[in-house]
Amino acid sequence: MTAFRTTASLALILCLVGPAAPARADDPLPSWDDGPSRGAIVAFVEAVTTEGSPDFVTPGDRIAVFDNDGTLWCERPVYVQAAFIADRVAAMVEAEPALADRPGFKAVLDRDFEALAGLGEAGIAELVAATHGGMTPEEFEAMARDWLATARHPRFGRPYTELTYQPMVELLDFLRSHGFSTFIVTGGGVEFVRNFAEPAYGIPTQQVVGSTIALRFEEQGDEPTIVREPRISFIDDGPGKPVGIQSHIGRRPILAVGNSDGDYEMLRWTTAGPGPRLGLIVHHTDADREYAYDRDSHVGRLDRALDEAPDRGWVVIDMKRDWESIFPGGSR
Amino acid sequence: MTAFRTTASLALILCLVGPAAPARADDPLPSWDDGPSRGAIVAFVEAVTTEGSPDFVTPGDRIAVFDNDGTLWCERPVYVQAAFIADRVAAMVEAEPALADRPGFKAVLDRDFEALAGLGEAGIAELVAATHGGMTPEEFEAMARDWLATARHPRFGRPYTELTYQPMVELLDFLRSHGFSTFIVTGGGVEFVRNFAEPAYGIPTQQVVGSTIALRFEEQGDEPTIVREPRISFIDDGPGKPVGIQSHIGRRPILAVGNSDGDYEMLRWTTAGPGPRLGLIVHHTDADREYAYDRDSHVGRLDRALDEAPDRGWVVIDMKRDWESIFPGGSR
Repeated sequence: MTAFRTTASLALILCLVGPAAPARADDPLPSWDDGPSRGAIVAFVEAVTTEGSPDFVTPGDRIAVFDNDGTLWCERPVYVQAAFIADRVAAMVEAEPALADRPGFKAVLDRDFEALAGLGEAGIAELVAATHGGMTPEEFEAMARDWLATARHPRFGRPYTELTYQPMVELLDFLRSHGFSTFIVTGGGVEFVRNFAEPAYGIPTQQVVGSTIALRFEEQGDEPTIVREPRISFIDDGPGKPVGIQSHIGRRPILAVGNSDGDYEMLRWTTAGPGPRLGLIVHHTDADREYAYDRDSHVGRLDRALDEAPDRGWVVIDMKRDWESIFPGGSR
Repeated sequence: MTAFRTTASLALILCLVGPAAPARADDPLPSWDDGPSRGAIVAFVEAVTTEGSPDFVTPGDRIAVFDNDGTLWCERPVYVQAAFIADRVAAMVEAEPALADRPGFKAVLDRDFEALAGLGEAGIAELVAATHGGMTPEEFEAMARDWLATARHPRFGRPYTELTYQPMVELLDFLRSHGFSTFIVTGGGVEFVRNFAEPAYGIPTQQVVGSTIALRFEEQGDEPTIVREPRISFIDDGPGKPVGIQSHIGRRPILAVGNSDGDYEMLRWTTAGPGPRLGLIVHHTDADREYAYDRDSHVGRLDRALDEAPDRGWVVIDMKRDWESIFPGGSR
């Protein structure tokens, strides 16, 4: 108490004798425009954290879930993990040229998106399995980390991990400072995203839910080992997201943030629960600073969720209007 | 700093003028005998939390995993969840008498453990599916909670949730107060254990890893719903435990606690990692206050892990010698 009182008194004295502090010096959301989206977020957090409020939620139930691609970081021109797969395919073909004839590998090498789409789910699964399976989690982690450290975004020329959305990083911090537990719920591979979730977003590995490769435990000699099998065991997208949330978290979130129809079921599941709920949709409206896309995009298509947002009470974040900066460092 | 200094000064004054405090007044592990098991635990925690120590581990990597049945609470005469299934079968048969003819149901009603063992994995799975599936997680939760509130242990006459091990509850608190994240990794059903993990052990739902029933998301009318399918999707036991840990936590723990050969692979996986590691085995040696069993038990069989403990450096907790009380309330 003493320390608090001292600080408070000091602040009072400074107010009386010093110059006015900058208007938003201690603003927890400095990259957010002071408009309706920010207002909805702040009002929600205030409601659920004010003791005695009819909307008060105990800290244990303050669960917030965030999609990753297009919600926490840039997903254009292609998903970051797709770029990783493309580079991995190129490296594998360099080591073993005959692989270039396999349909999936060929489509990736040719950047032939139509052929890729034509592979169907089984073909994509085979591609992921070939590039992501048959190694230990430690080996995969080292490979993914090396790639993330060196790969650059084709338009912005920066590492992908620097193309996180600064307003979202602030929102995650803001929520955690109000007793929320923050989770990523991604269609991407869980062990890919876990490589950067902590440094980029402050989210530890155990709070990342995602698509999975089957794992197998075995003793190699006297060495206990986990092996990634060349087989996808769970797709954490669309209706998979509420399932992933229930399996992993075991509680219904009170706040969900997404940007595409792949997040529709997660938004539905979250906001249909009793008590105060908030659903947020990042709408990519800024072709100048980032990208502008929604209904017709092959990546991050946003159609049904956008249509239903008004009736469902979901807040649509207009990137161009609502975000004063996009990426960390404030350069854009 | 001021508040801290004041308290420290006050403590100094009290030391100088007041009577000596009771020897273990602020002991974080009062139910542990001051012997080798407690010594090994305290030394490990001190080593990994002392900055500058060669064994220092950053808080994010201080992951501790605990088996549940027989490690955190009593598993005799049968697993608590088996008692739950038995009562559930009885209730289902009362509502629909024809069910009594199904082999699994009949074996449960007759308490015929040989017939139950003879059902094989498929028969057991069918039984679990019939008693645990075909409902929403909320419905299952309500059912399990009601049962836990009313069922009593046949020998001790107390609710099962009062038959947690007090020394383990203290150990969990002790670890958390030293920056550890504590997880349950159980062969039991994850949604069964999540019902009491927070009140009994201070472990939130998202830190319970366990065996799972398949889940399905669907819209029932305009109501988004998750349905528990009548099918086991993952068995978190034996080699499943390291797999469950990697899938859910995504990091190798530095401390693992178990009591049976079902925990062998988890102990191996945890303690084979680099740097400081601790494996603990609860050995049930106290027929008077609890139960005494190991190699020949049909529940919680402990054989291979006991044999290998000395060579692997795993600490065997001798319940009779090391625990001054067993259950909360100090009555035993």
